[in-house]
Amino acid sequence: MEHLVFAAFAGALMALAFVVIMYRRVMSFSEGSEQMQKISQSIRTGANAYLRRQYSVVGVFFACMLVVLLVMAGFGLVTWFVPFAFLSGGFFSGLSGFVGMRIATAANCRTANACQEGLNRGLRVAFSAGSVMGFTVVGLGLFDISVWFMILRFGFRLDAEAIASAMVTFSMGASSMALFARVGGGIFTKAADVGADLVGKVEAGIPEDDPRNPAVIADNVGDNVGDVAGMGADLYESYVGSVLSSCALGVAAFGGNFRALLLPMILAAVGILCSIVGTFFVRTGEDTDQRKLLAALGRGTNLAAVLIAVVACPLVLWLLGRENLGLYGAILSGLVAGVLIGKATEYYTSDTYKPTQELAGKSETGSATIIIGGLGLGMLSTAVPIVIVGACILLAYFLSGGAVNASMGLYGIALAAVGMLSTLGITLATDAYGPVADNAGGIAEMAGLDPEVRRRTDALDALGNTTAATGKGFAIGSAALTALALMASYVEKVKEMGAEVAIGDFSLMDPLVLTGLLVGACLPFVFAALTMNSVGRAAQSVVMEVRRQFREIVGLMDGKAEADYARCVDLCTRSSLRKMVLPAVTAVICPVVVGLILGYKGVVGLLAGATATGFLMAIYMANAGGAWDNAKKYIEAGHYGGKGSSNHKAGVVGDTVGDPFKDTSGPAINILIKLLSIVSIVFAGLVVNCHLL
Amino acid sequence: MEHLVFAAFAGALMALAFVVIMYRRVMSFSEGSEQMQKISQSIRTGANAYLRRQYSVVGVFFACMLVVLLVMAGFGLVTWFVPFAFLSGGFFSGLSGFVGMRIATAANCRTANACQEGLNRGLRVAFSAGSVMGFTVVGLGLFDISVWFMILRFGFRLDAEAIASAMVTFSMGASSMALFARVGGGIFTKAADVGADLVGKVEAGIPEDDPRNPAVIADNVGDNVGDVAGMGADLYESYVGSVLSSCALGVAAFGGNFRALLLPMILAAVGILCSIVGTFFVRTGEDTDQRKLLAALGRGTNLAAVLIAVVACPLVLWLLGRENLGLYGAILSGLVAGVLIGKATEYYTSDTYKPTQELAGKSETGSATIIIGGLGLGMLSTAVPIVIVGACILLAYFLSGGAVNASMGLYGIALAAVGMLSTLGITLATDAYGPVADNAGGIAEMAGLDPEVRRRTDALDALGNTTAATGKGFAIGSAALTALALMASYVEKVKEMGAEVAIGDFSLMDPLVLTGLLVGACLPFVFAALTMNSVGRAAQSVVMEVRRQFREIVGLMDGKAEADYARCVDLCTRSSLRKMVLPAVTAVICPVVVGLILGYKGVVGLLAGATATGFLMAIYMANAGGAWDNAKKYIEAGHYGGKGSSNHKAGVVGDTVGDPFKDTSGPAINILIKLLSIVSIVFAGLVVNCHLL
Repeated sequence: MEHLVFAAFAGALMALAFVVIMYRRVMSFSEGSEQMQKISQSIRTGANAYLRRQYSVVGVFFACMLVVLLVMAGFGLVTWFVPFAFLSGGFFSGLSGFVGMRIATAANCRTANACQEGLNRGLRVAFSAGSVMGFTVVGLGLFDISVWFMILRFGFRLDAEAIASAMVTFSMGASSMALFARVGGGIFTKAADVGADLVGKVEAGIPEDDPRNPAVIADNVGDNVGDVAGMGADLYESYVGSVLSSCALGVAAFGGNFRALLLPMILAAVGILCSIVGTFFVRTGEDTDQRKLLAALGRGTNLAAVLIAVVACPLVLWLLGRENLGLYGAILSGLVAGVLIGKATEYYTSDTYKPTQELAGKSETGSATIIIGGLGLGMLSTAVPIVIVGACILLAYFLSGGAVNASMGLYGIALAAVGMLSTLGITLATDAYGPVADNAGGIAEMAGLDPEVRRRTDALDALGNTTAATGKGFAIGSAALTALALMASYVEKVKEMGAEVAIGDFSLMDPLVLTGLLVGACLPFVFAALTMNSVGRAAQSVVMEVRRQFREIVGLMDGKAEADYARCVDLCTRSSLRKMVLPAVTAVICPVVVGLILGYKGVVGLLAGATATGFLMAIYMANAGGAWDNAKKYIEAGHYGGKGSSNHKAGVVGDTVGDPFKDTSGPAINILIKLLSIVSIVFAGLVVNCHLL
Repeated sequence: MEHLVFAAFAGALMALAFVVIMYRRVMSFSEGSEQMQKISQSIRTGANAYLRRQYSVVGVFFACMLVVLLVMAGFGLVTWFVPFAFLSGGFFSGLSGFVGMRIATAANCRTANACQEGLNRGLRVAFSAGSVMGFTVVGLGLFDISVWFMILRFGFRLDAEAIASAMVTFSMGASSMALFARVGGGIFTKAADVGADLVGKVEAGIPEDDPRNPAVIADNVGDNVGDVAGMGADLYESYVGSVLSSCALGVAAFGGNFRALLLPMILAAVGILCSIVGTFFVRTGEDTDQRKLLAALGRGTNLAAVLIAVVACPLVLWLLGRENLGLYGAILSGLVAGVLIGKATEYYTSDTYKPTQELAGKSETGSATIIIGGLGLGMLSTAVPIVIVGACILLAYFLSGGAVNASMGLYGIALAAVGMLSTLGITLATDAYGPVADNAGGIAEMAGLDPEVRRRTDALDALGNTTAATGKGFAIGSAALTALALMASYVEKVKEMGAEVAIGDFSLMDPLVLTGLLVGACLPFVFAALTMNSVGRAAQSVVMEVRRQFREIVGLMDGKAEADYARCVDLCTRSSLRKMVLPAVTAVICPVVVGLILGYKGVVGLLAGATATGFLMAIYMANAGGAWDNAKKYIEAGHYGGKGSSNHKAGVVGDTVGDPFKDTSGPAINILIKLLSIVSIVFAGLVVNCHLL
């Protein structure tokens, strides 16, 4: 039965083959004029330089952690596989981001050029680039998992329990890498964006992406290192984390049965196939109408979702038999919950619905009221997703038979997360294409292409905002479910480490659990604060630099001299790398410290608290930021005074506040809550053997 | 032993007698010139009109709830005492707010007038008025509790268990009243404040409290109905809630022993005595230096705290013997935690420390960066208080012997809350005096008194901001501890209602608990959003009205015609009353609905989740708001460009966003988390007998 892993392995190879095809397809398009190539080259150089330095900083962290893990392995607190799996996870997570960034920086000028010929052509280039990223993530993720399984099973002849126990710790490398990439890239992109906007748009009054703005290249680099490389590493982590935690819980529920362990992996492989089929249905006409464009992408993602919903049923039947068909219900509830959270996100952040339109109206009484309104909107928008996730948890748990056997219920929750992420290949493709279109717009502006081209890239970009909202829904929803699954895996791990644990030990009536809960609930707040402050400080330094260049470079404003773009890129790189260390290290150290003081009960409290507020904060920040962004665009489209009005200024303030909300702190919290769990699992042996209370 | 209740009763009477003395003292001061009397009269009339209408709206709610409770009593789901205790709690809570408002509106012109003669004289009037409020709250609170005890014990001859079980539900009336008062008053005060500022200061460029501003009286009325009447009802509820929950847990820990039931009541009575002693040590010289003024108030509050810390030890020894001396440790840890949270709040919000000074510096790059900075500051400032509360919980629990007997530990946590609030009489006096000084400043401005007078009232007012921060620390800290105590009481209640409950039933591994936790964690977000949106909408209507008056009333800007103040007051009244219903009703209905679906396990999850995020949100919002307020004042004091600079404008935006944060949503969340618990307790019988899952 364990040979079924080859099916998963085949799925991974299929995804990677598809990546190669898509990559070639993107590369077959022309890069456009020499000027466009030059701009694209500057962006590529900046992004490469950033990633290189990011990886070297992260390398130091990985080296330190490797030593810690080797020492722990020496003391028997983790298996000897953990340090190496930690490295492979980090490597593939980083590689996902790197590949995504490479294709995005190659596709930006090609998309701009293709848009000269037509909208559909532009969409094809951008979406193909997005597909490269999407399928790289799922391909490498499943590759890493299935190869490790083969090593452990066919190389070391471990049984299912031992494999599950080892593999559940393997996503720590990916999670750490993802956190660095998200936080570092997030700080970079928003520091550059805020800095460029504040001086360029507000003070100097020049349009967005104007080549006279010294921060304009940094801004475009930021889109690539934050929204592409950061997101790639992030979703790699989500994907791998959800699959691995459900493998572990499957073994806990079914004992030494390889079928339960392999179900999530094979489900992922089938999801890849469905996603590939879906991509063939994405095409559009020449109409820039948003609804039609959205329908073009929707056809692909919806088809993939329907396919997996159909195929998962016989898959579960075949692997685990009719008596476990409830698990199919769990998978389905995860899939549906992901779609619903995406819809809720869209409702709260798209300017085709009332909340964002009304938010735009609040600019009438100035920036204070639009800020209050956006914060309120973000907070209110947490209600529906929390009910959806709550219902999903209950459905997944009870449909899987949790009422009779708690382990089955927890396995069901984990499978719901896998279900939600099963079509990640295509949903990520629709998501990752956004920054490519955004960059293409920047290049079109800087290269002075026909306004019609800019109009087309803008249409693609605006669509990207909507798909990004949907993508965030999946990312947040799956993060919550995966975090809960990892929490359950933690309890299994604690048992395995020799502690005598009953389910009832984690009662809210226990002060250790309760204190852990309070501290855990606080972590997303602190983490969001640290990352937001980092963006604020980095942005201030960009503002100073841009002001300096405007002042000191003679002829810059008249277009006679060129700005020193590289300096802004370098500034963003240095400050974001410096500032990403504290939040990331905090996330790794906190659960260990709390565990050493409060013991494993406190850790479970911490994980529950962090998951609850992390989920809320992630939605609050993502939706408030998205709504401000679109409210500004709504004003720019001519409502409430339009561009240049005082209402528009208020809208810009809202958008600027929203930038770190939606692109730095919010998404990083998703990773945080899983990293906390994974770190707890890896250090479970230490905590069980040594704690204060 | 139960006759010791007379000691508590005597404490209540002592407080009320002190109130009468202080009231007379305030009234003995002159009201000042005719113009000052006239202004004060307008404020009083507006505040009275608001309260009258508020009580009539609340009356409808109370009538509905009374019917519900009577029906439930008919079905045996609650005792027959509950409906009547519900009324008495609501009545006294409302009365506390009413008395506070009466004295504040009488003291405002007297303080302004006294400030003409000297700073110390002004402080004496304002502080005496604050004392009336502080001791009314504790006096009426303890009166209500001790009279009910006497009725139940000496009238109905109930035993300790029955009394505790009945009395723990009694704070529902107070909590409901408090929520309405806080939300309604909070919306009123901030709608008027934001509206007055946005049009007056920003658009028309006239100073604060300028009589030409049509919203100026509404603004001053708001200080009274929100910061005074709302706060009075709020702290009445905290006080009563903490005492009653610890009475109930005392009986759970000690069985039918009246000593454990009476300890919190007698501790409260002793606290009143210590607080009265403290008030005699509050006096100052003629120096407006903030540190000296703060020291003047600090002498009183610190003395009271030291006294109760000393006296509580023999009290515990005498009532419960040497073997339970650990409970004294719990009381002490609560007292110390309250002081420390206050200090942390002060550090993050006072402009004598770095965080607020740096925040002011963020105005250099505009309103967006000061908003980002303030939000980050608020989120970051949650870390220290959460660690303090966490440590307090653990200390209180383990010192009280929770490791051996969980009930003892929970009783300890409840006593920590009582310890924290034991000196409420004087801490509330230092807190409530702030709005009086604020009003006095407004009157001084409107009546055109000597600038020196305004300088003195400003000094008193600025001090009020610091004491308000400290007061908030106590309010939030005690709310968290009380909410946890009430959660424990809820579990007792569920057992009493016939459910077979073990501590382990509330495990985080149970999906019902977990789902409840998620929903509960979401409630403070939703509640904050509802109240913030209400402020935003109400403020917008005030803005429209003020703009209309400026446009339509000829000669208003030249000071030749008088503004229609009453219309703004009426507008604020109507919109705040309309908008307070939804948040308040949500708070009452949610725990019942969740209980009916998820059962009592879900309710415990809900309470824990709401307490955790409620605590965080309350601190986040209070501190962000306080820091913005003081950053603006710091700029006004001449830093970063001073008044009128573009930095100042950015500071005003921050302050405006902070207004609903710190004075509407933040404080109301404190009440929310306790109201959720109390409602759950009252409806426990229903939920135990009837739930879906």
